[in-house]
Amino acid sequence: MRMRTMTKKIQIYDTTLRDGNQARNMSLSLDDKLNIAQKLAEFGVDYIEGGWPNATNQLDIHFFEQAAKLDLGSTKLTAFGSTRRPNSDVEQDATLNSLVEANTPVITIFGKTWDLHVKKVLKTTLEENLLMIKESVQYLKSKCEEVIYDAEHFFDGYRVNPEYAMQTLLAAEEGGADCIVLCETNGGMLPMDIREIMEVVAKTINTPLGIHTHDDSGCAVANSIEGVLAGAVQVQGTINGFGERCGNANLCTIIPNLYLKLGYECLSSSELKSLTEMSRYFSEIANLHDDIKQPYVGASAFAHKGGAHIDGVMKDPTTFEHIDPALVGNDRVYILSDQSGGSTIVKKLQQFLPHIEKKDPLVGQILAKVKDMEAEGYQFEAAEGSFRLLAAKEFGLYKEPFEFIGFRVMEEQKGGSHDPSAEATIKVKANGKLVHTAAEGDGPVNAMDNAIRKALEQFFPELADIRLIDYKVLVINGKEGTGAKVRVLIESADKTDTWGTVGVSANIIEASWLALLDSINYKLMKDSI
Amino acid sequence: MRMRTMTKKIQIYDTTLRDGNQARNMSLSLDDKLNIAQKLAEFGVDYIEGGWPNATNQLDIHFFEQAAKLDLGSTKLTAFGSTRRPNSDVEQDATLNSLVEANTPVITIFGKTWDLHVKKVLKTTLEENLLMIKESVQYLKSKCEEVIYDAEHFFDGYRVNPEYAMQTLLAAEEGGADCIVLCETNGGMLPMDIREIMEVVAKTINTPLGIHTHDDSGCAVANSIEGVLAGAVQVQGTINGFGERCGNANLCTIIPNLYLKLGYECLSSSELKSLTEMSRYFSEIANLHDDIKQPYVGASAFAHKGGAHIDGVMKDPTTFEHIDPALVGNDRVYILSDQSGGSTIVKKLQQFLPHIEKKDPLVGQILAKVKDMEAEGYQFEAAEGSFRLLAAKEFGLYKEPFEFIGFRVMEEQKGGSHDPSAEATIKVKANGKLVHTAAEGDGPVNAMDNAIRKALEQFFPELADIRLIDYKVLVINGKEGTGAKVRVLIESADKTDTWGTVGVSANIIEASWLALLDSINYKLMKDSI
Repeated sequence: MRMRTMTKKIQIYDTTLRDGNQARNMSLSLDDKLNIAQKLAEFGVDYIEGGWPNATNQLDIHFFEQAAKLDLGSTKLTAFGSTRRPNSDVEQDATLNSLVEANTPVITIFGKTWDLHVKKVLKTTLEENLLMIKESVQYLKSKCEEVIYDAEHFFDGYRVNPEYAMQTLLAAEEGGADCIVLCETNGGMLPMDIREIMEVVAKTINTPLGIHTHDDSGCAVANSIEGVLAGAVQVQGTINGFGERCGNANLCTIIPNLYLKLGYECLSSSELKSLTEMSRYFSEIANLHDDIKQPYVGASAFAHKGGAHIDGVMKDPTTFEHIDPALVGNDRVYILSDQSGGSTIVKKLQQFLPHIEKKDPLVGQILAKVKDMEAEGYQFEAAEGSFRLLAAKEFGLYKEPFEFIGFRVMEEQKGGSHDPSAEATIKVKANGKLVHTAAEGDGPVNAMDNAIRKALEQFFPELADIRLIDYKVLVINGKEGTGAKVRVLIESADKTDTWGTVGVSANIIEASWLALLDSINYKLMKDSI
Repeated sequence: MRMRTMTKKIQIYDTTLRDGNQARNMSLSLDDKLNIAQKLAEFGVDYIEGGWPNATNQLDIHFFEQAAKLDLGSTKLTAFGSTRRPNSDVEQDATLNSLVEANTPVITIFGKTWDLHVKKVLKTTLEENLLMIKESVQYLKSKCEEVIYDAEHFFDGYRVNPEYAMQTLLAAEEGGADCIVLCETNGGMLPMDIREIMEVVAKTINTPLGIHTHDDSGCAVANSIEGVLAGAVQVQGTINGFGERCGNANLCTIIPNLYLKLGYECLSSSELKSLTEMSRYFSEIANLHDDIKQPYVGASAFAHKGGAHIDGVMKDPTTFEHIDPALVGNDRVYILSDQSGGSTIVKKLQQFLPHIEKKDPLVGQILAKVKDMEAEGYQFEAAEGSFRLLAAKEFGLYKEPFEFIGFRVMEEQKGGSHDPSAEATIKVKANGKLVHTAAEGDGPVNAMDNAIRKALEQFFPELADIRLIDYKVLVINGKEGTGAKVRVLIESADKTDTWGTVGVSANIIEASWLALLDSINYKLMKDSI
């Protein structure tokens, strides 16, 4: 049985800024890259591969210029590139010299392992490729303290021609590489392939080994772990597993697996607590949706929905949780759904109405209401504000703070103009006084938001504190075209709290309005309780 | 080296309708479940676990009543439940009898392996739990031809108390179970744990074994494969890996790994070709976003973006693809992006303008235009229609079919009413004739859609063929609240083609309008080329 007794250090090599940026939908700006580099250094990875600086990639040249000014602590920045071109003089090679000019403490270059690539892509001889590897590493070692060699397509190449594949690694070793990384570039291998091949390599190569995998067989995490167990001291991967095709090995899964389950040293425990924050920060910067199912850090990684599971976790969390979510900075969540029973509802109600008991008949009534609304397309898991309003109404604890009488929204566009103007008028009654006002906005929802605040702020000055921090639209039944139903989720915050509210309608304006109204009503309710 | 020489048959046991339905955001209706069951049977899985029929889950009782009328071919339907309650008479046990009443050819029950659960959750003795397992299996075997026993938390239980864990399996074996499935319920194990433990179990238990894993360590696929290599003849999992927390083992990854990489018999090759369709059908029914990174079947699984990769794949696809995407019914995609160079653009242009050559100076101009628009938030990968319009304009091949003069959209809502009415007026000029008309709709976008079609159909009767088949809204910078920028993607179809178009604006009405206008313009352009 494996135990947490090993204390070997595993180097974490992050390639989010280079290989990760090859993901579809991903296009990091210079500022994004600098911000992420800073965050990665605070998080405590050993290496940050910043990009491939060359004449056709000015952004990465600028990145290395700017990144030199960052304080990255003990984290080392690396510039990435390829070996010299076939039949060229290593000292005159533009690729190698642009790497030297990036002036990083470490340089990483990749070379070809697979004979197919040497012949079809490089269009050179197998012998020349060996020279290219050896001379390039040797040249860079004369210019830079640390050189890492990435053996591209190592496993595919080894399968077809193991002898040649080993020769390419020996060429890098002779050149003086500080670390030789076996890359599973096409991502198609299974764990036993990695294990078998790495064990052979570890017998021949004396240089420290690394492992770099992709997820095309859904085994990138397992393959990285096999690599470490077979002797690799460096793991290359990306935050959230972003990368070309199915993505790179996901460091947000590998790091806790290595540390919590296998006892390797990689990040210290306190840095591990910022793993969830790191993952979500990165999605935000990259403007990508979080994968809620992501192991350890996903919003659902410790979310319990089945009644039996919720019951078990309440009795003892280890019954349905493999680790304590706090170790990686994540939270336990109980999901309200047609599968959750009275005890989930009670637990959620008690968070704001501590006196509620499970036997209260209103609990069943609220559960039924939630189920009805879910059937219409509502979801309350990210809309605590709407859920609490609904519950307060059922309990008779809610007093409408103002009466909504009506709104009109107008929107106009002229051909050729890209500046349509939206205007909203609104009528509300509060403290017996009728207010009829209007506001403009950047689109109809923004105009409504401005109008309702304008109408109400004289009665409820605390509304000035609300900031809308997120606005999400999900088309529920997209196949109905523009007549589809949409669910709008709004996240709001004041000085002390954040809360979510939800609206559903076939009409995006109405759905947005319902969520906006709930946000304002929840703010007023919570301040008065 | 492993080879495709094994021909052992592995049973595929799908639990999408039961365990999969525990995923957050998932709530399948009766019709959804029946549709998915039919599709799974056509796809050719061996078992479909339909649900847990019991008094508090009427939907699943109805499901089994209705499913009995489906023609599922050789696929077997199974009802799922637990062993009898502690200290109850097996013949009188409500859970067991509701399983018998579901009248399926197979019944699956789970029992407790882990002593912690026996004591804390069941609150009974270890001895009674063994009796519960044995008697329950025995009783069901007297009522039903085939009984599968799921050993819940087997691996966690084995770690803590291996002797007791084995006793629970022996109890199921004595009861006459046809298959004993080792469940990695908490999902926290790594591949070597599964390998080590399964090898021990296989030496003691004579009943055929199965493996059921979850993805909390990101190793569900690898763990399932280790289970098969250690002797399991049945794999339990879900389509797209849906399930509670981080999800169940993903059958869409495991099936091609077993068949294409390890040579096991599971689905025939022709059924494997429908894997991608099956995966996407399921997301659609479940109303969940596709995971574009999903191995084998994701929209990006064979998408190439980096210039060097695109170049390599064009020379020989095996350079950067682990399998031929056609084997699983997926497609190769070249991504337009700031990382893609002229040759990607050329390849995309040639699909509708075959005479274009890479050296044409307009190619560089289009690339620059695409990059500018991407910086504004546009994405063209799902918007081929908008990309082609843009290119045709640059090439001077586009003649505006009509002139857009302006629109107004009005929207009104009264307090208490849930039926806001949207109205759009529109002015366009075509063939020298000015048309000014109006239409109502289910929300402003639908009203605009109705108005523009009404205005134009007299000039372009072919517009009657357009159906809007999907409408998606993505908030690009959600943190700006209701003033955020949105990207609207519309998918349209006529009798022969489907095409995507895109619009971006801070105003959702304008973004929708831009995408709608592109859809109509593309339809008119393509019909006239």
